[in-house]
Amino acid sequence: MPDKTLPIGVFDSGMGGLTVMRALRTRLPGENFLYLGDTARLPYGTKSADTVTRYALTAAQALTARGIKMLVVACNTVSAVALPALTEALAPLSVIGVIEPGAEAAIAAAQGAAVAVIATEGTVKGGAYVHAIHDRAPFLPVAQKAAPLLVPLTEEGLVTGEIATLAVARYLTPLLATVPHPRILVLGCTHFPALKETIAEVAGPDVTLVDSAETTARAVEVRLDALGLRNPDRQGSSRFLATDAPDRFSRVGEIFLGAPIDPGSVEVVDL
Amino acid sequence: MPDKTLPIGVFDSGMGGLTVMRALRTRLPGENFLYLGDTARLPYGTKSADTVTRYALTAAQALTARGIKMLVVACNTVSAVALPALTEALAPLSVIGVIEPGAEAAIAAAQGAAVAVIATEGTVKGGAYVHAIHDRAPFLPVAQKAAPLLVPLTEEGLVTGEIATLAVARYLTPLLATVPHPRILVLGCTHFPALKETIAEVAGPDVTLVDSAETTARAVEVRLDALGLRNPDRQGSSRFLATDAPDRFSRVGEIFLGAPIDPGSVEVVDL
Repeated sequence: MPDKTLPIGVFDSGMGGLTVMRALRTRLPGENFLYLGDTARLPYGTKSADTVTRYALTAAQALTARGIKMLVVACNTVSAVALPALTEALAPLSVIGVIEPGAEAAIAAAQGAAVAVIATEGTVKGGAYVHAIHDRAPFLPVAQKAAPLLVPLTEEGLVTGEIATLAVARYLTPLLATVPHPRILVLGCTHFPALKETIAEVAGPDVTLVDSAETTARAVEVRLDALGLRNPDRQGSSRFLATDAPDRFSRVGEIFLGAPIDPGSVEVVDL
Repeated sequence: MPDKTLPIGVFDSGMGGLTVMRALRTRLPGENFLYLGDTARLPYGTKSADTVTRYALTAAQALTARGIKMLVVACNTVSAVALPALTEALAPLSVIGVIEPGAEAAIAAAQGAAVAVIATEGTVKGGAYVHAIHDRAPFLPVAQKAAPLLVPLTEEGLVTGEIATLAVARYLTPLLATVPHPRILVLGCTHFPALKETIAEVAGPDVTLVDSAETTARAVEVRLDALGLRNPDRQGSSRFLATDAPDRFSRVGEIFLGAPIDPGSVEVVDL
């Protein structure tokens, strides 16, 4: 039984996972968090499943070596391709990804209407959202599209304006033109909530956006309670690890976390 | 003295260096080439100098282990931060980067007029072009700007059209508004020649574009002759190594090489 005061480990290929961290801190303010962004090797979204799995295992080991009570995989690409390998390697530690909570949220919102998913190349290629949705709702129509340009756009802070709108439309227009017309759009990459405003504008008022940050935070809460692992403290803390460039991590990370990150609080680790 | 029939090693963080490979194959059709793209760890342009140097050393060793007679560093970021470390580690093997040939070409074209440079964050941060130009022409005005979004744009094949034009203008408009008005624009990243048409349109007719691919090929030819290392064969060959995703390498690589790449000819290496 892990120590309840240990932090929850949160792992992402870079900084996008900070949108999940943000939802976790809001829902679980008493918990301690240890975030690792593999900024030296990002992006994962264009890499093969084998490489992503290998990188994810070394990153997860860096977190477990420091002591964590649970691992949240705050990256859609890693959740899509490496969750079974991580779960097996880290057992009996509890591991939670973002795909299944996202799929459940999409099904609940859809009420039988068609679902569209935008994600990275890696997530789309493996069809992770399609499988996770069809495992639960076999007849729900699901369309998906890779939107790789949206990742560097958010990292550049280009989340509104003409370039962002055109890039979002490039992916959404053909995706939303599929039949039956999707009423739900899953933001299947942790970078995309930063573009929410622009995506909502392009998608129009009849499309509901679903991102997995909030539902993942809820899944973590349920799992903590089930395992009796809630931290009894009232005010938790956050620490950050990055595999490269802590200055860039804190500067770009603020876009996703929605709160300042002191560059001095970011420790560089070599994997 | 290396064997003349050995290939020339060409190293890049990914696929952009294929623009240099293209110029090398045109100028030196009798040579054999062995290209290594570190596609598992790209992009280098947003990473720290330490990490880029570490990655470059392991990649170069993978090439020397297979036997090469010279190393061409076909990546501006690596040339900017790791050329001394590579030269020392690989001595007596001859190592040629792209920055110095690019700086010489810019000076020759400028005729005293101001020079502007667009490059990755890593190249701009170290000021490699500014230093290389000022070492040779101390009073030449040089302005530079990081243009990180242009790398993923080219990898998406988005080299013309509205998004490409807006993204190019985002960087070029403030850069070319500097005083004195630059008449030369150095494409300080091997990805950027793929955007040449759009860049030329945005920059206007009074700005001359300089890319280091052609001048680097010339520098390699001069060095081969100086060392008596020309391959006596009339028709050389090309082989490709990638650290990840050979299918993506061949698909995206064609944009930069300007010729088809058989996915079966791309060998995956683990660094």
